[in-house]
Amino acid sequence: MINLQRRLVAEWLGTALLLATVVGSGIMAERLASGNVGLALLANSIATGGALIALILTFGSVSGAHFNPAVSLAAALRGELGKGETLYYIGAQIFGAFAGVAAAHMMFGEPLFFASQHVRSGPAQWWSEFVASFGLLAVILGCSRHRAESVPVAVAGYIVAAYWFTASTSFANPAVTLARAASDTFAGIRPQDVAGFIAAQLAGSIAATTVFGWLLAEQDAHH
Amino acid sequence: MINLQRRLVAEWLGTALLLATVVGSGIMAERLASGNVGLALLANSIATGGALIALILTFGSVSGAHFNPAVSLAAALRGELGKGETLYYIGAQIFGAFAGVAAAHMMFGEPLFFASQHVRSGPAQWWSEFVASFGLLAVILGCSRHRAESVPVAVAGYIVAAYWFTASTSFANPAVTLARAASDTFAGIRPQDVAGFIAAQLAGSIAATTVFGWLLAEQDAHH
Amino acid sequence: MINLQRRLVAEWLGTALLLATVVGSGIMAERLASGNVGLALLANSIATGGALIALILTFGSVSGAHFNPAVSLAAALRGELGKGETLYYIGAQIFGAFAGVAAAHMMFGEPLFFASQHVRSGPAQWWSEFVASFGLLAVILGCSRHRAESVPVAVAGYIVAAYWFTASTSFANPAVTLARAASDTFAGIRPQDVAGFIAAQLAGSIAATTVFGWLLAEQDAHH
Amino acid sequence: MINLQRRLVAEWLGTALLLATVVGSGIMAERLASGNVGLALLANSIATGGALIALILTFGSVSGAHFNPAVSLAAALRGELGKGETLYYIGAQIFGAFAGVAAAHMMFGEPLFFASQHVRSGPAQWWSEFVASFGLLAVILGCSRHRAESVPVAVAGYIVAAYWFTASTSFANPAVTLARAASDTFAGIRPQDVAGFIAAQLAGSIAATTVFGWLLAEQDAHH
Repeated sequence: MINLQRRLVAEWLGTALLLATVVGSGIMAERLASGNVGLALLANSIATGGALIALILTFGSVSGAHFNPAVSLAAALRGELGKGETLYYIGAQIFGAFAGVAAAHMMFGEPLFFASQHVRSGPAQWWSEFVASFGLLAVILGCSRHRAESVPVAVAGYIVAAYWFTASTSFANPAVTLARAASDTFAGIRPQDVAGFIAAQLAGSIAATTVFGWLLAEQDAHH
Repeated sequence: MINLQRRLVAEWLGTALLLATVVGSGIMAERLASGNVGLALLANSIATGGALIALILTFGSVSGAHFNPAVSLAAALRGELGKGETLYYIGAQIFGAFAGVAAAHMMFGEPLFFASQHVRSGPAQWWSEFVASFGLLAVILGCSRHRAESVPVAVAGYIVAAYWFTASTSFANPAVTLARAASDTFAGIRPQDVAGFIAAQLAGSIAATTVFGWLLAEQDAHH
Repeated sequence: MINLQRRLVAEWLGTALLLATVVGSGIMAERLASGNVGLALLANSIATGGALIALILTFGSVSGAHFNPAVSLAAALRGELGKGETLYYIGAQIFGAFAGVAAAHMMFGEPLFFASQHVRSGPAQWWSEFVASFGLLAVILGCSRHRAESVPVAVAGYIVAAYWFTASTSFANPAVTLARAASDTFAGIRPQDVAGFIAAQLAGSIAATTVFGWLLAEQDAHH
Repeated sequence: MINLQRRLVAEWLGTALLLATVVGSGIMAERLASGNVGLALLANSIATGGALIALILTFGSVSGAHFNPAVSLAAALRGELGKGETLYYIGAQIFGAFAGVAAAHMMFGEPLFFASQHVRSGPAQWWSEFVASFGLLAVILGCSRHRAESVPVAVAGYIVAAYWFTASTSFANPAVTLARAASDTFAGIRPQDVAGFIAAQLAGSIAATTVFGWLLAEQDAHH
């Protein structure tokens, strides 16, 4: 096991690079897309998928490459991460997420942080975040059991899809949601809409952890 | 072998997430594409490919990740799935497909189900579905023999291509076809056109199973 | 070794599905792209890349998945394929290519065959085909030596790139070139321009086979 | 170990094909995109990603497939490449980069070399190149340790993302930067802006080498 300090740096750095990608590619895509939001989201989703493959492969062997409090909480629920470690992981992810947003803003000449005005609220959005997070945890838990080496490509493929098949463009990550509230750009979310998103994300993650706990249980017995 | 109940839940859930992707990403893409259908189909096809990689990796080790009655029938023809199991698989896939359509509609504020008015009929469409299904089964049967770990990426690559190279955008799946009749959105198909599609899909699947039964037979003897 | 009959059917069928993808996705993309040729080529290139991954994985263990006379000739030059077998391979590829074009035309309601009027000629085009074919053989020969299981993704990645970085959109395949002359659609080439393309393709392939024969030679001695 | 001559030819040839892709696909994309710069960059980034997978797989087992003086310098800093070898590697990369630009220009009927007028300067651009190069080295160093076989897909995924998430479209490579100054096309950079880019790239590369030297150090001790 790598010592905790290094794992936290890996979570911080990986989450920062992930947020720099999500926010930075959103800014670039919106600026270049001549007003075609579909084209902007296509570039944004492909860039995010590419970064996820790279970052999970890069940091996976150090910290597990969670980059997401919902993933760390699921690991804690399954007994794979201690309580104290989980809190530290979540702290590193949140700080990393804000650092990544600031890094992206500096690249594009924007203020370090500025509150988003992008409304994302209501039952359809919350249901979207529930489904998005349920699916993300399903993919991570399902692949980790028998195809652990395929988690990077599976998560990247899933997120590319989820940008499109959910009405919320699939935040599916409480640290990401918090930090995107500090960016009034393509990827932003109004601060007052954050709580609803995070609640839906946690509900979806817990549901997936429960379902997959049962779904994969018998395999353990038989293998 | 995982017990049947868990395998059926996996088929139900995987098919639901697949349909949520196909229908949901179609709605999102059409809304954002500023009337450019080519751009909408590009997003729809890339999202579907991403989801297929993720879902086959996630559920493959539980149920085989068929998500498709044509695939389960081919497995039954080859003696890999019992008659009763095959019927249960198909039932789970059909229920899952409708659940996924409803889940997508809820995310985008549409009615749970509403009949499609999208005309998809005539010999060119049926020939497209024959070719699409022949190719899909060819890829599954050919890869499963010697490169089983590559089935997820092969199926995803194939379906991304088939969205474009067939005139029908490659449904290639009877459960998917039934459920898409209940969605008057980008991915829909008129209920009265479903039977022709399913007949063509089954013909293509049986043809591929026959051809690859012969093509791969000698390899068994020599290896 | 699989018997020759089965290998020839695999080459015929794989080349047919490849051409159906190239020509069919070109027709679909052009029809849907609202006149934006860049968008059409993007869809065409992504579809072709997806099909290549799937088809090489599907047929690789049967026939080697050449689908290309230049690849079979390089195999013959290196002593991996007999003279008679090489001729049969090339014949199967050419017949398969025309069958695939006809299959695509039937899906889109076009005549079975109709001569292209798309001018593709001149030194810049020939140099493009020389580079495209040199690169394709380089990728196949370089990967086959130490990363044979990665050939499908390497070839697909290369061809997606080569659609864009060459002025000819990278035919790089004599059988494909012949058959695309029989399609007056997005992917077509005028019959009188075929000879120049094929000459450039063969020159590029022979150059790559020579260079990589030297480049990889020492490795054999040391491993 | 392959002899130096063959490794230098591999670096030369691989860098040439990489530059032909970057510059050639940029020209093609700009010509076909009907003025939509977002669409042009999407094609340019996907083409570059496809080429990177193919070229790293092709040349990795010969020379390590650096194609980038920053990568060779990091290898030298870590004691994996001798001083003399490093200088030869960098020379081969620079010559290869210019050869690739000329090859692309010949394919598209442009002059062999012509100075770019594309302004790329200022702190936001330099910070972008710092981040881009830091991330690239992070991905290479992180993956090489425990997932060396995944470096091609990780680097390709990262670069696709970095084209979008940095304001500079992520040159991240001094040889590439020099050669792109000789191309007044989509991918070009004004000669007077080259020095700033290269300084930022080297700073980012050294930072990443330092951070990852520490981050991965303990793993060595424990494995």
